[in-house]
Amino acid sequence: MKNILIFGAGRSATSLIEYLIQHAETYNWQVWVADASYELVMSKIGNHPRAKGIHFLADDTQKRREYVQNADVVVSMLPVSLHNLVVQDCIEFKKSFFNASYISNELRSAENQILADNLLFLGEMGLDPGIDHMSAMKIIDKLHAQNAQITSFKSYTGGLVAPAHDTNPWGYKFSWNPRNVVVAGQNTAKYLYQNKFKYVPYQRLFAEAESVTIQDKGLFEIYPNRDSLSYQKAYKLEQVPTLLRATLRQKGFSAAWNVLVQLGLTDDTYQLDNLSNTTYKEFFTSFLSPEDALHGEEILEQVHHKFQLHWHPQTMEKLTYLNLWSDELIGLSKASPAQVLQHRLEQLWKLEPHETDMVIMQHEFEYVKDNQPYRLTSTLVQEGKDATHTAMSNLVGLPLAIAIKCFLIGEIQLTGLHLPILPEIYNPVLAELDKLGVRFKETTQAL
Amino acid sequence: MKNILIFGAGRSATSLIEYLIQHAETYNWQVWVADASYELVMSKIGNHPRAKGIHFLADDTQKRREYVQNADVVVSMLPVSLHNLVVQDCIEFKKSFFNASYISNELRSAENQILADNLLFLGEMGLDPGIDHMSAMKIIDKLHAQNAQITSFKSYTGGLVAPAHDTNPWGYKFSWNPRNVVVAGQNTAKYLYQNKFKYVPYQRLFAEAESVTIQDKGLFEIYPNRDSLSYQKAYKLEQVPTLLRATLRQKGFSAAWNVLVQLGLTDDTYQLDNLSNTTYKEFFTSFLSPEDALHGEEILEQVHHKFQLHWHPQTMEKLTYLNLWSDELIGLSKASPAQVLQHRLEQLWKLEPHETDMVIMQHEFEYVKDNQPYRLTSTLVQEGKDATHTAMSNLVGLPLAIAIKCFLIGEIQLTGLHLPILPEIYNPVLAELDKLGVRFKETTQAL
Repeated sequence: MKNILIFGAGRSATSLIEYLIQHAETYNWQVWVADASYELVMSKIGNHPRAKGIHFLADDTQKRREYVQNADVVVSMLPVSLHNLVVQDCIEFKKSFFNASYISNELRSAENQILADNLLFLGEMGLDPGIDHMSAMKIIDKLHAQNAQITSFKSYTGGLVAPAHDTNPWGYKFSWNPRNVVVAGQNTAKYLYQNKFKYVPYQRLFAEAESVTIQDKGLFEIYPNRDSLSYQKAYKLEQVPTLLRATLRQKGFSAAWNVLVQLGLTDDTYQLDNLSNTTYKEFFTSFLSPEDALHGEEILEQVHHKFQLHWHPQTMEKLTYLNLWSDELIGLSKASPAQVLQHRLEQLWKLEPHETDMVIMQHEFEYVKDNQPYRLTSTLVQEGKDATHTAMSNLVGLPLAIAIKCFLIGEIQLTGLHLPILPEIYNPVLAELDKLGVRFKETTQAL
Repeated sequence: MKNILIFGAGRSATSLIEYLIQHAETYNWQVWVADASYELVMSKIGNHPRAKGIHFLADDTQKRREYVQNADVVVSMLPVSLHNLVVQDCIEFKKSFFNASYISNELRSAENQILADNLLFLGEMGLDPGIDHMSAMKIIDKLHAQNAQITSFKSYTGGLVAPAHDTNPWGYKFSWNPRNVVVAGQNTAKYLYQNKFKYVPYQRLFAEAESVTIQDKGLFEIYPNRDSLSYQKAYKLEQVPTLLRATLRQKGFSAAWNVLVQLGLTDDTYQLDNLSNTTYKEFFTSFLSPEDALHGEEILEQVHHKFQLHWHPQTMEKLTYLNLWSDELIGLSKASPAQVLQHRLEQLWKLEPHETDMVIMQHEFEYVKDNQPYRLTSTLVQEGKDATHTAMSNLVGLPLAIAIKCFLIGEIQLTGLHLPILPEIYNPVLAELDKLGVRFKETTQAL
């Protein structure tokens, strides 16, 4: 019997846990799920005989090491800051490790040790990063095999709300960590456009969102991700003139979000004290200047005027919906502006139990083959079942779960530190995802 | 004989060194000046019998400790990051310490030790911080003694170019560390306005500069400093409804600087590699978006259009003057955008040897005394003699030099860690500054 140990039973772990439990009998696995909330663990594993819930904090070193020692493979679905605790245990006790987060420098520095011990450490094995790598690499490898020259690669991913439950002016509800949404983009974005580097600082990121068309879905908008160039080499695209990875949102989201950015409401660099008796209105007016109030206008009017929103009624509608100038108490004692904003948004952008999310990923390649230019578009659209069984949880958890299965039954025999860019990984995983209905629509047109 | 040891002979140390040397014979001092550049040291001390130049790097621990051990008082004019090396030596060898920089948390943590050893550590003893503290506290203490209630305190300081040598459209030349000018404001500014906290993020700081009138000098503009509230308690202004510390610039400076900020040219968070063969134009266009170039306009036109500068010819004139779209090579191999910009500005905003700078500091108080509201305005305007004997160097160095003199001859008998907010410090120092022509013009009007 193989013991699979999962740290973290949160939002993104649902499908991972369910898949592994479903296959546990067939492959003779025992699935251990550890979380700081025992209730949460039990809600995810029920009383399945192949699953065991464990209750402890990830920084309880003694317990953590005890369980890692007894495991065959270890998965971390913990917050990013805690992965390294688990990683260190896995290195010490020589256990293979899987997660869905970016490969950290700490992990990178252990690369030789992992290889020497014949372990597999597979990171970035979720949705984005994860499915994006696999689906893009499959196309890149195919095009390279055909001697095609790739001249442009753009890739967009968005975790959105499904159209049926798109009930607020922002076209957005939280299907993953709200904090990541609020502080998104606070590092300068870098990408490559026609062989020129492009740099977009935070102050301009949301102001300059661009329109894109998603196959069968119509117009959306994108803003560039932190560093599109970081995968240039891994993707074997050293010669590509245009390379852009971006985040996808509903049209109009970024223009309104930019107002929050410009005001300073996404600032996470300092804490506001004594919020206990502070209303949203008092909080909000701290970000208006004395000059804005010179004409004694209502706050709504001040915002309107400050950002010249006369011709942008949809931006104004979004801001009005947040009602950050209400007389309600915030109900936090100490928080950064970003945390206050997050607190408000979690009330307003909550996915209700019966509501569903939608994930969209689209890759756009331009390439030249036999002197003929083509455009290849590959699009994944997935909706969730409800607020627990989200498309997000599915698409983050299933690649991980499938990779663990493939590893345990010997279909993946790699060792070392990897992200899923090799055919040995992406072929079996994408094939099973396809069986489970996670399928890209690919179209190619001559240009 | 007393040994005074000065670390750093740079831009701001000129007047400090000259004052101490001038008074060395009278008070029987030996002045030691240490710098990484022996040439620089010698240019500042000449062959004066009371002065000795020392040549070593501040992080040469052995030499540093050797000289600190032999000193009676130690002054650090080093870059901020190096002060702590000297501070630690002074604590170990029980030497009193003076500098013109903000009191760091490290220094604050040694407070009890300093007091127990009967030492004086005097920080923030330059211009801003320094003269601002002393001149403001003298007024605050006077008003409090008269039972006046201070309702507003605003204080502005600017290191500018003198009108006679104001020969570029920005009205600005460097009289102090250029780097500090380029990265200024990158922390959220905080101030108090009519009992409300106000927060201004970097992205809005320069966009919302306000006009102020300087006595006898006319209109200028200000943008708020990092944290105006940090001195609220030290200034005994816990009850004041409005408290603002700000940086002073010529009218129009901030609107044009804001364009550089919005583009991302002041970004110091990442390095650009391979600049060796890069022109300013190539560098600059990395901060324009592909959409800006869609109409094939010249770069000048793209900037014009991007920031809607049709009605802001003076902003456009300033940007044109920088000519960041020239075909010249930058001439650096690796640098952050901020460092590239600084490199360009150092060519254009250089104070030529015969040119002079100008420092302006103005305090504006509003207070109520016997039910009558008043406004008190206190203004210092100083011009330098040439590019070496700048007003900036004078106003940073003289307060330090005078304080050291007062300490050595027993006119200041305090011990412990201080900034110059006590009458025991500001009275003798301001009195001597006045004799040397450093004098505020104070006017009061009933409102």
